[in-house]
Amino acid sequence: MGYQSGRFDEGFVAKLYFEDFKAGDVAEYGDKLVTVEEIKEFAAEFDPQPMHLDEEAAKKTMMGGLCASGWHTCGIMMRIVADGFILNSSSMGAPGLDEIRWLAPVRPGDRLRVKAKVLETREPKSRPDFGFVRIHYDVVNDKDVVVMTSTGNMMFARRTPRAMPAEAKP
Amino acid sequence: MGYQSGRFDEGFVAKLYFEDFKAGDVAEYGDKLVTVEEIKEFAAEFDPQPMHLDEEAAKKTMMGGLCASGWHTCGIMMRIVADGFILNSSSMGAPGLDEIRWLAPVRPGDRLRVKAKVLETREPKSRPDFGFVRIHYDVVNDKDVVVMTSTGNMMFARRTPRAMPAEAKP
Repeated sequence: MGYQSGRFDEGFVAKLYFEDFKAGDVAEYGDKLVTVEEIKEFAAEFDPQPMHLDEEAAKKTMMGGLCASGWHTCGIMMRIVADGFILNSSSMGAPGLDEIRWLAPVRPGDRLRVKAKVLETREPKSRPDFGFVRIHYDVVNDKDVVVMTSTGNMMFARRTPRAMPAEAKP
Repeated sequence: MGYQSGRFDEGFVAKLYFEDFKAGDVAEYGDKLVTVEEIKEFAAEFDPQPMHLDEEAAKKTMMGGLCASGWHTCGIMMRIVADGFILNSSSMGAPGLDEIRWLAPVRPGDRLRVKAKVLETREPKSRPDFGFVRIHYDVVNDKDVVVMTSTGNMMFARRTPRAMPAEAKP
């Protein structure tokens, strides 16, 4: 049972370890309704720009109306993939992201989901116990518009430590 | 009066336009106390992993104790630079970021500030009314540890539309 089976809405799946991720694997997670209250609440705390806080003021911006902060969309993406597979995995966290693109506005009433694709897996030379998994995410709304993309590495513990090359042993 | 003068804690500064940003400009913003309540509240909504939600569970993770979600640190950075200069600028938003690195944990009680450096400014060939400003941010704690870095482009309207090359005119 691998990453493709990790849809949280399909019920129980085995806990995912590094060995369960393979380049080319795809999965889809979530169905998150974005409300106007959530948009304004996030913006009031983290991104109090007019286009995220006030309908009338937002109409005068290049966004043409109220929309979620890009950072709010990041948080929604995180929650969707957390519920989708990360909380049921050996995730050790992430050192960061290599790219975020905010491609289209997220509006009140949008329903968001996340399409995930494994780009690459990599075993660090000096560590037998975990690996890096490079994942691309598309955040898609209910009109099938990609509103955001991101790419980054995550660290997952191995189910079974791998044998190390002789020269790397202590 | 330029970008260096944009410290929000120095009182009134003139509104910043594209023309006010120059490569090499630096500025520093903010002094944000991160509380344990905020860390758990953000995590409960967006990133419910044990190291962000529960002190005891966090001790057993590679983070060694409770720490803020990396996405929460992004939100704090956004709020600091929003208050610092973006809300007093001609910002038209950002198409995304090219890099985020979470370098050290953000702990309850940390005080965060943001060091900003303009890497580059760029005028789009086909648009006389705005420009791109490429900015690198270091998020630094009160022990002068860089906890996060990010680099990305922002769009700022020009104070005065620039003259366009003849070939680009309609």
